[in-house]
Amino acid sequence: MNFSFSDKIDGLKPSVIREILKFTSEPGMISLAAGNPAPEAFPAREVQEITADILSKEPVSALQYSVSEGYPRLRETLKQWLSRRYAVGQPYDDLIVVSGAQQGIELSAKVLLNEGDTLLCENPSFIGSLNAFRSYNVRLEGVPMEEDGLNLEALERIAGENPRTKLLYLIPNFQNPSGTTMSLEKRRAALEIAKKHNFIILEDNPYGDLRFEGEHIPAIKSMDTEGRVIYCGSFSKILAPGLRVGYVCAHKELISKITVAKQCSDVHTAILSQMICQRFLDQYDIDGHIAEIQQIYKKKCGLMIGEIEKKFHPSVKITHPQGGLFILATLPQGVDMLAFCQEAVRRHVAVVPGNAFLADESQPCSSFRLNFSTPTDQQIVEGISILGSLTYEMIP
Amino acid sequence: MNFSFSDKIDGLKPSVIREILKFTSEPGMISLAAGNPAPEAFPAREVQEITADILSKEPVSALQYSVSEGYPRLRETLKQWLSRRYAVGQPYDDLIVVSGAQQGIELSAKVLLNEGDTLLCENPSFIGSLNAFRSYNVRLEGVPMEEDGLNLEALERIAGENPRTKLLYLIPNFQNPSGTTMSLEKRRAALEIAKKHNFIILEDNPYGDLRFEGEHIPAIKSMDTEGRVIYCGSFSKILAPGLRVGYVCAHKELISKITVAKQCSDVHTAILSQMICQRFLDQYDIDGHIAEIQQIYKKKCGLMIGEIEKKFHPSVKITHPQGGLFILATLPQGVDMLAFCQEAVRRHVAVVPGNAFLADESQPCSSFRLNFSTPTDQQIVEGISILGSLTYEMIP
Repeated sequence: MNFSFSDKIDGLKPSVIREILKFTSEPGMISLAAGNPAPEAFPAREVQEITADILSKEPVSALQYSVSEGYPRLRETLKQWLSRRYAVGQPYDDLIVVSGAQQGIELSAKVLLNEGDTLLCENPSFIGSLNAFRSYNVRLEGVPMEEDGLNLEALERIAGENPRTKLLYLIPNFQNPSGTTMSLEKRRAALEIAKKHNFIILEDNPYGDLRFEGEHIPAIKSMDTEGRVIYCGSFSKILAPGLRVGYVCAHKELISKITVAKQCSDVHTAILSQMICQRFLDQYDIDGHIAEIQQIYKKKCGLMIGEIEKKFHPSVKITHPQGGLFILATLPQGVDMLAFCQEAVRRHVAVVPGNAFLADESQPCSSFRLNFSTPTDQQIVEGISILGSLTYEMIP
Repeated sequence: MNFSFSDKIDGLKPSVIREILKFTSEPGMISLAAGNPAPEAFPAREVQEITADILSKEPVSALQYSVSEGYPRLRETLKQWLSRRYAVGQPYDDLIVVSGAQQGIELSAKVLLNEGDTLLCENPSFIGSLNAFRSYNVRLEGVPMEEDGLNLEALERIAGENPRTKLLYLIPNFQNPSGTTMSLEKRRAALEIAKKHNFIILEDNPYGDLRFEGEHIPAIKSMDTEGRVIYCGSFSKILAPGLRVGYVCAHKELISKITVAKQCSDVHTAILSQMICQRFLDQYDIDGHIAEIQQIYKKKCGLMIGEIEKKFHPSVKITHPQGGLFILATLPQGVDMLAFCQEAVRRHVAVVPGNAFLADESQPCSSFRLNFSTPTDQQIVEGISILGSLTYEMIP
């Protein structure tokens, strides 16, 4: 039979990255395309201990239905953790546990945006979030990026041109895909522009704890005094993504609506996963664990940048992240980026074409995303070497 | 600041049941309001063994990102299980693992329905699903229920009156909240009406394995030859709801769209939860475990009905479920059902007012839902005794 799909879903394609990831499971493929944490950064032994303890002492709590707001002890722990680490959380705020920050982002869009409303985003930005917005028939307007975050003049202009702007989506730290970090000045200015044009900022901070260089820059949420910022965080990069645990901290009126939407979506987040996160935060040396991960990523990022400097054609520009998982490389004008990525895959190195991250994928793009967290050191060296040869072949 | 929410979410209230459940955690409250499996039915020891094994042998698989379609070994196992147990699964079908059947239902609505489209449902029906539909601004049309399922004349008439009908939502086995089971004839007839009016059937079967009396009736999906039926199932009632694992079996074109929507929603279902379900199905005596649960529920249901017959005013009518978790009780005309439920809570017995399950909650309703799976035997006896006294006080 012929199926007729909803307008909002009909045109939506699977994430290019997820499609590439399937492809990269081919033997011999060096994948620099993923966004996975380094497997050696998982606290596997600790999770094993914690889980055995939970299932022997509180099996029914771990297996029974729970409340949509999240495991109460995890919510308390997270509120304290966010306050201590990021000065996030005002008396008017509340917190909900979600099934990964992805769900926090999707539900924020669902509760705030009607079809046809405008959402502003960094251009490029994280495709998973962009697709979540598209799945509600929201109009995406990309704001050009600079080395220190959004171009503010463009933000001001685009917000002015789009009176139905409801939300600005930002990844201020070690952005995906660019790896860049928004400056303190720009964070403050973006909040002022949000006030002026009366839209809400959705601050996504999955990588904030992965800073391996430079000084911490305060979260936009920490500068907010009226509930204009929704803050999303995740255990995916500091503990394990397979658990699917994230959280949203926002004004309690927003959290109350997000909770209703979450009830409709999956009732609550897997409770065993939530209990593992709570125990890990409360009973283990989370700060020490994060410090270890930072060292792993610092080393991997340094290795990749060093190899790029040795092997890439000098006209290829790259970003220099101070944390996170990604580097964005940009080919000189006139070089066909898609052809470059396709030839790279033929030579068994996968990267993600940059247009996948654009608000409008059909726009011209010369960039591709490199991930340094998932590959081994040897794969980084070999992969960059193969890409390097290709830059010399394709750049005149 | 003042928040402006999307039209689809603005009017949505938290599920009455979830709100009552919070309330019922008060000490001394006898809750007959839940829909939780009996805690003694959880295979806690087996989950403990399986989890320890997974986390010692394959910690990285359990903790890393995975594919949106679901853990491949679980998908294979489920396809075989559904085929063997329910004759569900045609060559044109595919299967996706979701975060509980609730997510399967929500995503099915999202991919198929535009705002303003019509969805037909049993009246009464499961509030969690109704709220999921409402969260997409879908028009709900309730079809009256009889002892053996939908009133077919009403279905035919309402479908005819609503040309934008896209979906019919059914819980054919031991329906929530009524406890009734749709007859084979009505299943066949509903599929014919769906063909005639060209809508899709969303068959939700969370309780199908909990039959403790009578003969198995084939799933509507097993009668479908063209992909007109979406089938949703769950591990919540046969293993544990806290894991949040369900599945959708449907035509591969539908599954492909649901997969894209799931990517936007939570990337994938918690992988440790999925691995636990797969191991339990593959390596343990699932049929034996289900037979045990059936005996637990048969005993509890029998106890509750026996007590009702002894203690309730004879003019209160109840359904006699052959499985599942629920009995629906109906007060005689003229008795104020909401006042009855409120007075019951004051006497520390919680039940769910029946109007919570109506497509239009403002319609008059004389029913309330009783759950026999969660309370202990003693709570059933005491709770029904208190409600019984109340029936005599309130029925003239």
